[in-house]
Amino acid sequence: MATEKNSNGYEGLLPLCLRWLKPIFAKLSNKAVKLATMTKKLAKDDSRRVVHAFKVGLAISLVSLLYYFKALYDGFGTSTMWAIVTVIVVDEFSVGGTLGRGLNRVMATLLAGGLGFGAHYLASLGGDTGRPIILAFFVFLLASISTFTRFFPKIKARYDYGMLIFILTFCMVSLSGYRDDEIAKLALSRILTILIGCCFTLFVCIFVRPVWAGTDLHCLVANNIQSLALFFQGFGAEFFRLSQEEVSKDDMQKYRTILNSKSNEESLTNLARWEPRHGKFRYRHPWKQYLKIGSLNRECAYRLELLNGYLKTNQFQMPSQQIHGPFKEECMKICSESSRGLRELALALRKMVLPLTAKSHIEKAKVAAEDLKSHLEEWRFEEVNNAMEIVQVVSLASLLFDTICCIEKIVDSVQELASMAGFKAVEVQSSVAPEQQMDLQDQDQYSLQPSHGAAVLLAHHAITIDEQSPC
Amino acid sequence: MATEKNSNGYEGLLPLCLRWLKPIFAKLSNKAVKLATMTKKLAKDDSRRVVHAFKVGLAISLVSLLYYFKALYDGFGTSTMWAIVTVIVVDEFSVGGTLGRGLNRVMATLLAGGLGFGAHYLASLGGDTGRPIILAFFVFLLASISTFTRFFPKIKARYDYGMLIFILTFCMVSLSGYRDDEIAKLALSRILTILIGCCFTLFVCIFVRPVWAGTDLHCLVANNIQSLALFFQGFGAEFFRLSQEEVSKDDMQKYRTILNSKSNEESLTNLARWEPRHGKFRYRHPWKQYLKIGSLNRECAYRLELLNGYLKTNQFQMPSQQIHGPFKEECMKICSESSRGLRELALALRKMVLPLTAKSHIEKAKVAAEDLKSHLEEWRFEEVNNAMEIVQVVSLASLLFDTICCIEKIVDSVQELASMAGFKAVEVQSSVAPEQQMDLQDQDQYSLQPSHGAAVLLAHHAITIDEQSPC
Repeated sequence: MATEKNSNGYEGLLPLCLRWLKPIFAKLSNKAVKLATMTKKLAKDDSRRVVHAFKVGLAISLVSLLYYFKALYDGFGTSTMWAIVTVIVVDEFSVGGTLGRGLNRVMATLLAGGLGFGAHYLASLGGDTGRPIILAFFVFLLASISTFTRFFPKIKARYDYGMLIFILTFCMVSLSGYRDDEIAKLALSRILTILIGCCFTLFVCIFVRPVWAGTDLHCLVANNIQSLALFFQGFGAEFFRLSQEEVSKDDMQKYRTILNSKSNEESLTNLARWEPRHGKFRYRHPWKQYLKIGSLNRECAYRLELLNGYLKTNQFQMPSQQIHGPFKEECMKICSESSRGLRELALALRKMVLPLTAKSHIEKAKVAAEDLKSHLEEWRFEEVNNAMEIVQVVSLASLLFDTICCIEKIVDSVQELASMAGFKAVEVQSSVAPEQQMDLQDQDQYSLQPSHGAAVLLAHHAITIDEQSPC
Repeated sequence: MATEKNSNGYEGLLPLCLRWLKPIFAKLSNKAVKLATMTKKLAKDDSRRVVHAFKVGLAISLVSLLYYFKALYDGFGTSTMWAIVTVIVVDEFSVGGTLGRGLNRVMATLLAGGLGFGAHYLASLGGDTGRPIILAFFVFLLASISTFTRFFPKIKARYDYGMLIFILTFCMVSLSGYRDDEIAKLALSRILTILIGCCFTLFVCIFVRPVWAGTDLHCLVANNIQSLALFFQGFGAEFFRLSQEEVSKDDMQKYRTILNSKSNEESLTNLARWEPRHGKFRYRHPWKQYLKIGSLNRECAYRLELLNGYLKTNQFQMPSQQIHGPFKEECMKICSESSRGLRELALALRKMVLPLTAKSHIEKAKVAAEDLKSHLEEWRFEEVNNAMEIVQVVSLASLLFDTICCIEKIVDSVQELASMAGFKAVEVQSSVAPEQQMDLQDQDQYSLQPSHGAAVLLAHHAITIDEQSPC
């Protein structure tokens, strides 16, 4: 009886446990699948992330050789750790980030090391009682000042890490000096190990598939202009509910990422300014001009956000024929010319050549907008029964006009960048009819010419420059 | 002759030097003045920055006591440095930032310390040859994985620093173990000194004039709503060029900071989630709802950016009387009601009470907008000579209507927040006429009542709750 109960009890316990564990396992496997999907997506979206992870692993493995070889380790002793720490904290995704952090770390360590020595010397003049008081005063003073300095916008943007390392090293050197008389050796080995760490990191960062923040910024701005173009390309057909769908809805919505691109653009600009000459970018490339273009892109995107509202709401009633006819024609023209102009601008920026034809497309769009305006003025309103019928036509036209003015400013600022950075003059030799120019970047051929200042020469020999594009 | 020349030469050298140094001194003094102005401005804009700088100085000075007292120093030896380093890298502006970094540091150190031990033990099984290979493999693997993990958006937002410290500590423990057999002691003193450093930092951070990221976020969102209100308060008068100037131009432009507020709001939300109960905010305050309100604020600000365009351009021609009359009346009503509704919403959010009357103001604005729409429909267009005369009126009306829909969503999401966070129901007892309600936050009296769910009770006893506002 007792054994039966017992065996019953055991039989009952196992299924009970299983029932208990099943949802936990289900939850765990669910999480694992989610994690795997996320990992795959992250790696697929930008394969450089995987490369970066391995690069960091490589740099740390390389620098840890200092530990494995006794001859190297004996030179620095426990300070060898600083080389490892340096690699870990300095190795950033882009070359600009790594260089910026590395320079910040080295310069701050040198400066703070020197000041730490000074403080140590001054404190030693104070005798046994005065020494801790003088040291504490210096530490408090410099910590407070350097912490406050980190609130200065310019310092926060480029030297924030340096200020942190400055106060850290200062405290290290001056306080260690209180307990250890060999601070000269300590400071020297710290500097040397930090330099070694920086060298290893920079070596791996620059020579193993480097990621340049400058190139990223350049391509980001060019892609954002392309996104604006895609919106216009699809807007006309979408608005008048034409059957042909030139652009997918997802492509049209790409402009939305521009709305909140400011902080990304600013941080990339700050990183790009650390970078040396690379690819077609020289050391003092006018990075700040990208901020200007980016801010104009955003102003344009704000307007697109409203234009997009016209697509979403079903409130819009197609106006009657006498308005619809001319309105549609001008509207489609504005959209197609704006889109073409922006696409050529994006392409020229990508290829780093002078945008020669973009302006003329925008001018055509502007003319179409003026035509629309005069059409609106000519209309006999007695012909229209319902005023609301034209309310939305009019407000849309006004918004389009406003947007074109905004695009014109983008074109001007890209031209400004082109002349600042000395982009070459290149003539677009489009081999396809304008209607077929679905994706300019794949089909167009460019002819490269020597540029004389801003003057544009005609093409003589056409070469494809696709492989020269940094994006 | 020679002496004369010499003396002439000396006489010539001194002025030469002075002439040389003068512009340098002028430049330096110019820079110094600029620096002083900037410092003064930074300190004046937010006096908590100065307090923070002194707090960091204080925390470092306190923790450096470990160095000055021999009994304390002897316990940890050179590991004492980790306490200093911890204070410097963990001490952030807000309590949330400090807590987040501190927890990240402690947890990552514990976890990586344990794993480092494990790796050390496994490597020691490999013999003299296998040891460095096994160690290098572990270091490479964990460094790569943890670096890639930092690309996950959720981890980047909250555990980025932890991942850095994880790989740092793992390398430290496992590699030190290769050279030093006393790693148990090393790991223990590292953990203890980090804990001590965190305790000192948190003590100073929380008990000396704490800065709460949650409160900052709450006030930022409330202020942004207030900025939207200020724009509407001034827009009507500015647009119709009325002499009375209700709001200064600078106040009207405050909405522009909302356009790029996303990253700031996101980082504050991430910090606020670390914070314990403080003031009127409990531990699990619905911080994420602020992101929703913030994003609606931005959508509204995009529209304000266009409305602002109507003020800037001088293109706008005042329409003739038959349009102007009713248009102006409705327009002014829309602006004043929107402004009032938004102001009451901002005030309610500031005081953390249910926004009871905001919705009704927005409803009134919507009614006015509908009236305007029907007015537009009723107009006989034959009365109007020039179609362009009404083009801008119509597009402005359409934009205003669109904006009101946006404001309505803001009101709804704030009400959602109020019910999620259990704001109390409070009746506005305005003691001034609506026209005089220039600055609600200074003049209004609120009556606090017990709330029964979402039900609103009438006021019985009125108390001023100004001192309870977290902003």
